Amino acid sequence: MLIVAERINSTRKRIAPAVRQRDADFIRREAIKQAEAGAGYIDVNAGTSVAHEVDDLVWLTETVQSATEVPVCLDSANPRALEAALKVHRGGALVNSITAEKDRIENILPLVLKYNTRVVALAMDDGGMPETADQRLTVVKTLVARLEKEGVDRDRMLFDPLIRPISTNPEQAREAIEATRRIMTEFPGVHTVCGLSNISFGLPKRNLLNRAFLTLLIGAGLDGAIIDPTEPGMVAGILAAEALIGRDEFCLNYITAEREGKLETE
Amino acid sequence: MLIVAERINSTRKRIAPAVRQRDADFIRREAIKQAEAGAGYIDVNAGTSVAHEVDDLVWLTETVQSATEVPVCLDSANPRALEAALKVHRGGALVNSITAEKDRIENILPLVLKYNTRVVALAMDDGGMPETADQRLTVVKTLVARLEKEGVDRDRMLFDPLIRPISTNPEQAREAIEATRRIMTEFPGVHTVCGLSNISFGLPKRNLLNRAFLTLLIGAGLDGAIIDPTEPGMVAGILAAEALIGRDEFCLNYITAEREGKLETE
Repeated sequence: MLIVAERINSTRKRIAPAVRQRDADFIRREAIKQAEAGAGYIDVNAGTSVAHEVDDLVWLTETVQSATEVPVCLDSANPRALEAALKVHRGGALVNSITAEKDRIENILPLVLKYNTRVVALAMDDGGMPETADQRLTVVKTLVARLEKEGVDRDRMLFDPLIRPISTNPEQAREAIEATRRIMTEFPGVHTVCGLSNISFGLPKRNLLNRAFLTLLIGAGLDGAIIDPTEPGMVAGILAAEALIGRDEFCLNYITAEREGKLETE
Repeated sequence: MLIVAERINSTRKRIAPAVRQRDADFIRREAIKQAEAGAGYIDVNAGTSVAHEVDDLVWLTETVQSATEVPVCLDSANPRALEAALKVHRGGALVNSITAEKDRIENILPLVLKYNTRVVALAMDDGGMPETADQRLTVVKTLVARLEKEGVDRDRMLFDPLIRPISTNPEQAREAIEATRRIMTEFPGVHTVCGLSNISFGLPKRNLLNRAFLTLLIGAGLDGAIIDPTEPGMVAGILAAEALIGRDEFCLNYITAEREGKLETE
């Protein structure tokens, strides 16, 4: 399971001032903590300050890479910020994200090609947010075709089924689960990665819903998640689900994690 | 989601002496605690003492019914004990369980018919424990046909897909999940109820695996579980999963449970 660790995001209360004040120690600690919790990429997002996003994203990328070997997930819709960060990034970055929206793909896909990165692709297009699994699959089909035409291997494609809150759209969890199952079976070789916390927007005990939703998605074949791996119980729940669905032969990862004290849920 | 509450079982350390000493207050407290936690049936099992099972099961049934209106799930393979308990049980009991084994069904089905009860049916026959989802479905098909022939409505049938440990059979979780999905789609109107804790036998942090497994089973359509509803996080996890799969329109049960303080996970 690929974990994209989401804490270094300027919409978070403690991150914004750390970015503004260039508090490198704080950012490094956040990066290390998430790497130790199992992150495969450290997401960095500096989107709250449009005027400074280019500089901020570069600084975040360099700061994270000064702390850990785990590569960075560059989380921006701004091609200038993405390219500036890609220029300084060492190793294989993950670009987060393209969509099938014309402007977004035309601006960002060239960077994915030029810097040979992996890419998160959201299942939405100029028609707006998808409602059904079918709509999501139509967008994914278009994106797979376009990316393959441009020479992007399926292993570099990480599709996000696009999660919408069940509080306003009760059927959205089922549609996203079904979309995940179909993406993983209809397009063998691609990956799915889910920014899942939207599912519980507006509801109490969000962690409880988020964890149950992640378990259901893993049951449907999800092989990546954009989460906070330091959140109590989150990685433990992933390891349990993977042991159950047969991704962890003889539960070796699960048993090892227990011995290392990584299955504490609170 | 139907919860069959499993605590009053003489294999449990504190239950056996309470039964032996006829400690009615203790059993009543166990019954009330589980009823308040959401039990739809209170399971009673006195199987550890073969010589006294008939008397013990009758006493447990009467004691539980003196404490709560929640009906009893009579958990025995002994037809004499079952009939003695059925004679004193008020309201609609649940018999736990028949299988497709010749002796078991011939001895116990007549009681289900005579006392007009619901019945838990395990997906096993004289061929032994099932390995695959296919084998489970074959047994369930036989049982549905037999029960319908005898005039048992599908709503009275609760199929247990029969859970075996992943520690020795890594594929057993997947097979049981698939069996649950197929039972619920191929035999509309029947129920599934799963005694799930076997899944984690021999592994650490069993509650973590049990809860994740229950979430995956609910995702596959499971509508009943034989669990300890007082176990931290168990009912909370069920409510979260049901909100996600669309069994809890606009999350009303989930939100109500939160207001009542029932979503605490530890």
